[in-house]
Parts: sequence; C-alpha cells; structure tokens
Amino acid sequence: MSQDASTFQSMANAIRALTMDAVQAANIGHPGMPMGMADVATVLYSDYLKFDPKDPQWPDRDRFVLSAGHGSMLIYSLLHLTGYAEPTMDDIRNFRQLGSPCAGHPENFLIDGVECTTGPLGQGLAMGVGMAIAERHLNAKFGDDVIDHKTWVLAGDGCLMEGINHEAIGIAGHLELGNLIVLWDDNNVTIDGSVELSSSEDVLARYEATKWHTVRCDGHDPADIRRAIVEAVSDPRPSIVACKTIIGKGSPNKQGTSGVHGAPLGENEVAAARVELGWEHEPFVIPDDIMANWRELGKRGGEANAAWKARLDASGKKADLENQLAGVADQAAPALEEHISALAKDPPKVASRKASEMALGPLTEKIPQLIGGSADLTGSNNTKTASTDPLTCGNYGGRYLYYGIREFGMAAAMNGMFLHGGVVPYGGTFLIFSDYARNAIRLSALQKAGVVYVMTHDSIGLGEDGPTHQPVEQVMSLRLIPNLNVYRPADAIETAECWALALQTPNTPSVLCLSRQNLPPVRGEGDENWTAASNRSAKGAYRLKAAGADRKVVLLATGSEVSVALDTAAALEAQGIGADVVSVPCQELFNKQDAAYKADLIPADALAVSIEAGVTQGWERYTGMNGLNIGLDRFGASAPAPVLFEHFGFSAEKIVPQILAKLAN
Amino acid sequence: MSQDASTFQSMANAIRALTMDAVQAANIGHPGMPMGMADVATVLYSDYLKFDPKDPQWPDRDRFVLSAGHGSMLIYSLLHLTGYAEPTMDDIRNFRQLGSPCAGHPENFLIDGVECTTGPLGQGLAMGVGMAIAERHLNAKFGDDVIDHKTWVLAGDGCLMEGINHEAIGIAGHLELGNLIVLWDDNNVTIDGSVELSSSEDVLARYEATKWHTVRCDGHDPADIRRAIVEAVSDPRPSIVACKTIIGKGSPNKQGTSGVHGAPLGENEVAAARVELGWEHEPFVIPDDIMANWRELGKRGGEANAAWKARLDASGKKADLENQLAGVADQAAPALEEHISALAKDPPKVASRKASEMALGPLTEKIPQLIGGSADLTGSNNTKTASTDPLTCGNYGGRYLYYGIREFGMAAAMNGMFLHGGVVPYGGTFLIFSDYARNAIRLSALQKAGVVYVMTHDSIGLGEDGPTHQPVEQVMSLRLIPNLNVYRPADAIETAECWALALQTPNTPSVLCLSRQNLPPVRGEGDENWTAASNRSAKGAYRLKAAGADRKVVLLATGSEVSVALDTAAALEAQGIGADVVSVPCQELFNKQDAAYKADLIPADALAVSIEAGVTQGWERYTGMNGLNIGLDRFGASAPAPVLFEHFGFSAEKIVPQILAKLAN
Repeated sequence: MSQDASTFQSMANAIRALTMDAVQAANIGHPGMPMGMADVATVLYSDYLKFDPKDPQWPDRDRFVLSAGHGSMLIYSLLHLTGYAEPTMDDIRNFRQLGSPCAGHPENFLIDGVECTTGPLGQGLAMGVGMAIAERHLNAKFGDDVIDHKTWVLAGDGCLMEGINHEAIGIAGHLELGNLIVLWDDNNVTIDGSVELSSSEDVLARYEATKWHTVRCDGHDPADIRRAIVEAVSDPRPSIVACKTIIGKGSPNKQGTSGVHGAPLGENEVAAARVELGWEHEPFVIPDDIMANWRELGKRGGEANAAWKARLDASGKKADLENQLAGVADQAAPALEEHISALAKDPPKVASRKASEMALGPLTEKIPQLIGGSADLTGSNNTKTASTDPLTCGNYGGRYLYYGIREFGMAAAMNGMFLHGGVVPYGGTFLIFSDYARNAIRLSALQKAGVVYVMTHDSIGLGEDGPTHQPVEQVMSLRLIPNLNVYRPADAIETAECWALALQTPNTPSVLCLSRQNLPPVRGEGDENWTAASNRSAKGAYRLKAAGADRKVVLLATGSEVSVALDTAAALEAQGIGADVVSVPCQELFNKQDAAYKADLIPADALAVSIEAGVTQGWERYTGMNGLNIGLDRFGASAPAPVLFEHFGFSAEKIVPQILAKLAN
Repeated sequence: MSQDASTFQSMANAIRALTMDAVQAANIGHPGMPMGMADVATVLYSDYLKFDPKDPQWPDRDRFVLSAGHGSMLIYSLLHLTGYAEPTMDDIRNFRQLGSPCAGHPENFLIDGVECTTGPLGQGLAMGVGMAIAERHLNAKFGDDVIDHKTWVLAGDGCLMEGINHEAIGIAGHLELGNLIVLWDDNNVTIDGSVELSSSEDVLARYEATKWHTVRCDGHDPADIRRAIVEAVSDPRPSIVACKTIIGKGSPNKQGTSGVHGAPLGENEVAAARVELGWEHEPFVIPDDIMANWRELGKRGGEANAAWKARLDASGKKADLENQLAGVADQAAPALEEHISALAKDPPKVASRKASEMALGPLTEKIPQLIGGSADLTGSNNTKTASTDPLTCGNYGGRYLYYGIREFGMAAAMNGMFLHGGVVPYGGTFLIFSDYARNAIRLSALQKAGVVYVMTHDSIGLGEDGPTHQPVEQVMSLRLIPNLNVYRPADAIETAECWALALQTPNTPSVLCLSRQNLPPVRGEGDENWTAASNRSAKGAYRLKAAGADRKVVLLATGSEVSVALDTAAALEAQGIGADVVSVPCQELFNKQDAAYKADLIPADALAVSIEAGVTQGWERYTGMNGLNIGLDRFGASAPAPVLFEHFGFSAEKIVPQILAKLAN
C-alpha cells in the first residue's frame, strides 16, 4: 500500500524515535543505521515483506535478516510496531539490559521474528544465502503453492567489505537465487570515517561480476525505493539494492557522520531530532493512529497466512510438509542400526573419513532432510553419497552442494539453512580450515543450530602436506566453544555412533574430527545388535578395555590414538602393569556425566595418561597435574604419517618408558 | 632475454620433469600446477624477476609468493635450477620426507627463497599485499635507487575464491599498489572438478571493480606471457594477469583434469609425459646445457645485486637502511622506561586498551619501524598515535593503515609486511574477531613473524554488545596456538610491560588482550625506576600480593580479574585465611620458567584458584583437578559490564563462599 506522504513519514519516524530513545536510555548503542534505513524498512514491511506477527514460525513467511546487527533497534521497533508478542514497550525501554529480549545485537534464541543472530559482520548476509537455498529446495519439493517466499537482507558497508561477502555472493550468484534480495545501506560511512578511507571499490560492479542483479535508489524516497524493489523482485538473479541513505537521518547535527554510528545522540541532540522530525511525542510513546497504521500491516500478513493455510490444506501435502519440518533426531540411530551391526561382524580397517561416508550412506538414504556438501574437497571429505544428487540452479531438489573453496561462506550458509527449517545440513572441509570458518561455527553454537561439520584430515596423521595442513590445536580449541560437541571417533563403529549422536542434538552443532589415514578397528564385539541404547559413545567416554593385571594406569585417548593406547596398554600389561583404556570420543558429553561415572572411569588411585596428537593443554582437566599428557605442543612437519607418529612419540615404544618413569616417581 | 623456442621449452620442461618425478618418488603431491605454470614461471624468472640466488636476503629483491602453495615443486624447482644453495637435488629427491627442506607446502623457515609459508589458500596473495605495502613504505623513505622492487604472486582459483581475496585486493586496489602483480593460474579446474561446478564469476571484472588492472594471456605462449607482463608492469594499478593454462600440461592423458591436481601421475603416465615433452633424461637429472641456461639467470641477478650495492654505497643511506632493517627488540623496553616510571608515580585507572595507546605513544615516537592500523576500529582499539600519519596511496611514508572491515586481510598483510622486513606491524580489532583472522594468526606463529595483534574488548566486560561480541573462549583458544604469546595485562603498567615483551620476541607473534572497561591500578609501588630488568611480567606470572595470614589459597588471575582476585584475597584475609594473588599476564612465558619458580608461585600445599572471565578448560594445568576454576563456560549476555560481572559471579562476594566450601572439604 502506498501510504500518503505524511502517514509514511510518521510511520518511519516511529522507528527513528524508538531507536534514539532506546539508545539514549541505555546510554549505549547504534542509532545511525535504524534512523538511516527507517524509510527503506517501512516500505519493505508495508508493501513487500510476507510476515504474520501472530505466527512467527509460519513456514512460508519471508525471512528478514538484519545482517548489520548493530542496528538492532530497527528490528525491535519493527517487531513491536507490527504487533509481535515481543518486544513489549517495556522490553524496548530495557534495551541492552539483562533479561530484556532486546539485546545489543539481535539474538534468534531470545525473540521471535529475529531469524538469526547477527552482529559479526557479513554473516547475516551469508546466512540469508543459506535460507534462500533452503527455500528453493523446499519449493522444488512442495511447489509454489506451499513454499514460495523471499529472503531479505539488510546489510551495511561492513557486511560487504568482509571477506565472507565474496564467498556468500559467489554461492548465491552461481545458484541463481532470485528470491534473495539484499538492501544495502549505502551511507558511505564506517566507524573510522568515510568509506573512502579504506575502500575504492565499485560495489555494484563487483556484484554484477558475480552474476547479481543490481539497482540503486534514494533510500529516503518511498516511491524510488518501491521502484527499485519491484525491479529486484522481477529479476531472476539475486539482487542488491543500493539504498543511498544518510546515516542517522533525523539527527540534525550528527547525521551523515561516523559519530552517529555507534553512540547515543545525547539528550540535546535527541531533542533537536524531535524538532527536525516533527515528532512531538514523549519517549516510548507511539500515538494510536501511527500504531494503528503499523498494526494494519501485521493484520494483512495474518490474512495471507490464513490463505496459505487453506492452500496447504487443499494441497494434500500438509503431512509431508510437517514431516519435512520435523526434526531428524529420532531417525538417526534407527537409520544406523543395520549398518553398525553389520560392521560389528567384520570390523573394517578404514579411515574415519571413509567410515563417515559409510555411515552417511544409510543416513542420507533414510533421512531426506539431510543436505550434504563440501568446500571443494568432496573426494577428500567423503561427504557425497548415492542419495545426494547435486543441488544446482537447474535442480534445486538436489541434496549436495558444491560450495566451492569457501569454508566460511559454507558454514554460514549451513547455519541459514538450518535456521530456515526443513533441512539439516552437513558440510565438509579439512579440520585445519575450521579456522577459516571458526566464527560461523561459533554462531552455530550460539544460535543452537544443529548443523554437522565433517572435518577430515584431523592431525599429523594426514602426513606429507605438513604443518600448514596439520591440525594441532584445532580439536582442543573447538572444544572450548560453548554448546558445541566435538567428536573424534576411533574407528568405523565409533564414527557411526558419533554420527548418530550428532544428529540427535538439534540444538547443539557438532564437529566430527576424522582421520585421513586408515584406523584399525577397536570395536565390534558386543555391537552385533546395535541400537541407540547401546551407543557406547553416548556418554562421551567409556572403558574400551579393562586392565588385566592390577590397575595402575588409565589411558585416555581419542581418534587415531586409541589404537596407540591399546598398544601401550598391552605393553604395560606384558610387564604386569594393569592399564585401562578409555576412549573419549566427545569430552563435552563426558563432562555432563555424574561424578560416580567419571570416578569409575578415571579413578583417583591410577595414573591418568592422555594420548592425543594435539596440544595437551585442556587434558589436565582429566589427568590432573600429576598425570601424564602425551601430545604435540608444537607444529607438525611434512613426512609420511607413520614417520611422523614415530617421530613425535605416538607409539607404545615411546610412551611406555614415560609411564614407567612416572610410576616410579 | 627471449630464448629461442627450443631453449625455452627445455627450461620449462625441466620444471615439469622435476615436479612429476619428485611427486612420483614421494608417491603424493600436486603435479598439476607446476606443470601448468612452468612456462609462465620460466618467463618470469628469465625476464622479469629480480633475484640473486647467492644473496637470498638482498633487501631490494623482488618478492615471489607461491600463493597456490600446494604447487610447491614449482618453487623448489626454480630455486634449484637458478642456483640457490638449497634445495639440492637430494633435497628434491626427498620431497615431502622428514628433514627435507622441500616440505609438502613451502615453509619460509625451512628454506631461503621461499618468502612466506603458503598452502592455506588466499593468504599468500594477501601476504603479497603486505609485502607490497612494506616496499612502497621503504621506497618512500629511501628512494628508487635503494628500494624499488615488485611483488609477484602466483595464485590459483582457490586463492581467488576464498573470502580473504576480496579483503586483500580491496586493500591493494585502494592503496594503488602498482608494484604488485598477480599471475593467476587460470586453468578452470578445482579439486571437485570444473570451476563451473561452484562459480559463475567473471574474475577480472571483479578485480576491475576493485581498481585493479587486468590482462589475459595464453599461459603456454612465452611471447604472449611477456606481452601481458609488460602491460602489467607499466600500469600504475596492481595487476592480475589471467594466464590461461592447462593444468598438468605435458601429461598426455591427465592434463586438463582435476585428477592431475593433487595426485602423482603414476609410473606409466610419467613415462608417457616424458615422450610427450620430449624429455629423455633420467629422473632428477638435468642436462648440463639446460642447467647452464637456468644458472645464467641466477648470475644475471647477482650482477644486478652488485650494481644495487654500489648504488647503496654511493647513496649515503646505507647506515639508515641497515638501521631500518635491524630488529626492534632492543628498542622496546628503553622506549618505555620513562613512561612506566611516570605511571608508577600516579597509577591511572584506565582501560587496558587506553593503556595500550599510552604505551604506543613513546613506542611509535621512538621506533620508526612500527606501522599501526586497525580493521575499522581505530577509536575503539586505540591504535593510532600522534607519530603515525595515515599510510595512503598519496603518502606511502605514513605509518598508520586504515585496513577497513577486513580482519583476515589485515592479519595476513601484517605477516607479509613483517616478512618483507624493515617494518614491524601492529594491528587492532575486537578480540572476538580474532576468529575471523585466526588462520593468519596461526601463520604468524608458524612463520615466526613477530607481529603484534592489539585485540580489545576482551571479555564480557565489554558489556551491552552481548554474546556475539563477548570473547569467552578466545583467550584460551589463542593460547593453544604454538609459538604465540597471548598477553592479558591487568592495568596500565602491566600493559606497557606486555608491549615491551611483545616487541622483544621477533620470532614469536603476540596477542594483547585488552579491556574496554576501566581497570583499577594494581601496580605502581616499586616501579618508579622501571627498566627492562624490572619487568615483572617477563616471567609470565608473578606474585602480586603475598598472603598476610598463613597461606591457604593462591589466586591466579589475568587482566580485569586481577583486581577481583585482590578483592577476594582481602576478604579471605579478613577471615584469617592467607591468600597470595598471582597475576598471570602470559601463560606461555610462565610455562617456560623452571620448576622451582613455578612451585614457589603455586605451592602444592595451597588451594589454587583461577579467576578469568572466560572458559575454564586449560586452567587445570595450574590448579590441578582439586583446585577451583572461576570462569565462564557459557556464552555471555547483553547488559552493562558491572551487572554482568556480578551476574556471572566475578566478585569477591560470589567467589569467597566457593573457596571456603573447597577449603572445608
């Protein structure tokens, strides 16, 4: 609806007023973006965004991503004005205070209508790419009547300057995601000052080079904004709309400067802005007529939702859609029962990356929500299966993404896909390049997005590629991220068990750390009739082998070092020294066990020895200061894996003397 | 020199032969790129690259960066053929074996002529940008006669697809680094297959949008390569030369496919390639005439070097240049003596980010090699000083870089600047965004590049920006990177001490973790006549306050929690419980102390308690399993810092009861 100019302006100014008042009350925050983009946002919510404040989870809603997350008062204002249950005006008054859903940056887990957590620049846009992929995939499965919506991203110069922008728009352009529209707050100001301080780029030319449609508009002229959005909507390519705006518009003395980006206007300037805007109302007061105009937009969305529900009912696809949108947690272990039971009968000596591929066979066959992919390492990560055809611009129904050499963009897209709903993505790269994607992995954890990272080549065991490619600190450093489960399985059966667990935690992302090199089987006996209930990895650590002789030593090991621990135990037992071997596929799950279980596994009266081909710091949690930590507290080297394992001391021959010396102390 | 066609071809084929034979002998490696780019490399080394095999450290040499580091046999071949002392032919025979300088990926610390360590894609090109910046800066100081060289980067599709490429070329285009030339191995093949699987980008159009000069050539036609390079050299902008090549050229049955990227050709195909190339020589044998042609190039470089040395002698700038190229380690502590001694007289309550700025005042004033910068957070990181004018395309002599919102690109550029020599870069961002730059920080450590990262807003103490911006796991996870010193100073004096230490370790990079919020002074007494010898932070940890009553407790704390530890100690002492407070500004330095020092600081008969507003795992190294770890093993929240500190338990009031309970056990 094209409101008259005065109505439009008062609606947009409501955003500006709420923003400057909330930031002023908090005495900290970012007024510049919401005040600058208020007009664009008002047009978007008035005429284009498909949303229903009464049903924030409406599957066919448009997704709106505030990639420039520091401008959080924009989304809080919009949610309140259009009639979402939260935030209330009290929540807005408590902007940035403990307990308010109006956090400094928008957090998807605090408030409905915030589709993803943003703030770390560039990732919102990249998550938007993932949402658009998920939408096209579900559209291909369910048709236009059921799933056909857009993803709108509001991004600033920071989002566009970050490297991840290049990766994200490369994926979107290649996949021809025409349902993705980026509204760029083209205000020419960054924190340090003018964009010209640090960039000479022609942004739109770059987007065009990446196969995007581009269009410009005056971000303060509603008709011009509409013209540009209409053009963007009609173009089959993904679109970026360069909205030329004045940062902090409405603040007569500060607008257009970097000073308004991230600091309160100050009492005097807030007063001056009220005059400038013709906004005579008290702080946190929205006059009824203006509120009614906003609420009307929400109501219209409700009608659209009702129409959609009727279409869905009539389509015969309702049950299918519900199944698609349901979680996969219950399906994972049953899908693997036959596979693991078969492995138990003749346990193979395979790399755990290969074991992962073997587990993915039945998983992807039986769980249609799984969408795989790799950052150009498909044959190395072993992520593609017979059930996963490529997802391309000609076949959105496919289930395998060639993400290209774009680890960060892949991880963020995976987050967006998961948060969209209806799909559960897993994606691979070398474990070392978790570094490249690290902050997106962190955002998986913060956002409670249960994606699965398949990270292969997990230690010096990758051999000749050398220290740039050998993870040394990555396994432990990923363990430090809250709400992230890091698995390092020891053989084919443990790998399948870890896959089951990874899919059983929809609110916790997982990293599977997998070997390049073959691993001898350490399991099999007793696993012949495997079920979820018999998943020995489920407690994070378990006694793989009990001491024969009097127990003096407990060896804790993960992944490829579990077999080294078994060798070490055998050598100790040969000398009459009893040694348990405890496999620790997941420290996070073990940390959650009760004290009795922990004390049984790691009793105080035995020497605790950790063996892992990575940094030792962190293992003292389990071994204490008087234990022994066998690891690698330096970078690796380029040589064949067996040479490196021997050179760096990962062999029973090298470890036993250290244990004997410690026992003798 | 334009060799006749047959001579040229035999020289290029020498690279191909060495490559395929070395990879075959190792039975692992990447023949595709060196065989594809052999012709381009031969042109470059024949006619354009300024180098002297007898003087690999020649300050005015061109820098050659093999950003596509997996093609390492290209650089090993070139170094051997042109007459560098290493690699010997035996080294090449031992490609990828333990002890050979010919590692899987080129390592700057193993062999001269390898300017930086590459393999993690995209970073070589970004380091090349840093080298080109350093060159222009020194050129501005010393003039064309003394410093005037180019940086050549050989990059593949992976380097160009990675996000860091966008950041790196943005910096280079903005700074008009015309001395930087990228040779793109445009072979249209990635690991997963054709580039078209994952990208639809017009690469050159993107570079043009970022203010680069672009040109194409046939990468197998020497004349055409020369034409393109001449055009690139003459253009004032940075240049990318798209060299259309056939990956694995010379392998008749595998060239042009992804199969030749990263696997040996196989004995039969090696034999077939010998026929195809007309190369009749045994493996690892280079005929004398071909070797002589290559060695001639090295000799010519020696003559150029001699001419340069004569110019330098005549210039009157020799001593100045030597000073510029010398390390800064000896200058750091003296530059801070006056500053710290003054602080001691009236210790200020300031944020450690502010304290860092205060220390940078005298440091940048007195140490001309220091070049500062920030990823668009200058006013927040407090990295700019009165001595550091902006380094811009109009003023390369400046010493402050506005890197833009490009953390990864900044970090990699800093590595390149340091490795170029003559400058010591420091650069700032928020600590949380160390995640974005993490693999470049790792490469600082691996490459022994003593750069300094100024990472501010180091905990929940940043307050209202909330969990996306609050480092929780970053401090500990950075500590896990080998050869990286992570400092978290407690007040203004410790901050200055840590700055001194950071600059005193030219082979070890440093991260300074600094607070947003003000910190009460904990030091001062005894620091009135500060010298390097009295730097109490130098051992990584020291007893800040000795127990008054009988010592029962030792409190270990860092940064903003040191004052919490002092409060806690005071509360314990008030109850007659003696408590030491140990400040731990740098775990890595403390780890290097002898057992006696460690036992004196953390005696076995006291309860050890760590206090740090971050994840606890890792602290057990110092407290044991029976100690107490006060930390934050979850994400933070959005609220004012004092509220968060109280909420998450960082106060004497919340900590003392936990200690009493532990003592009572």
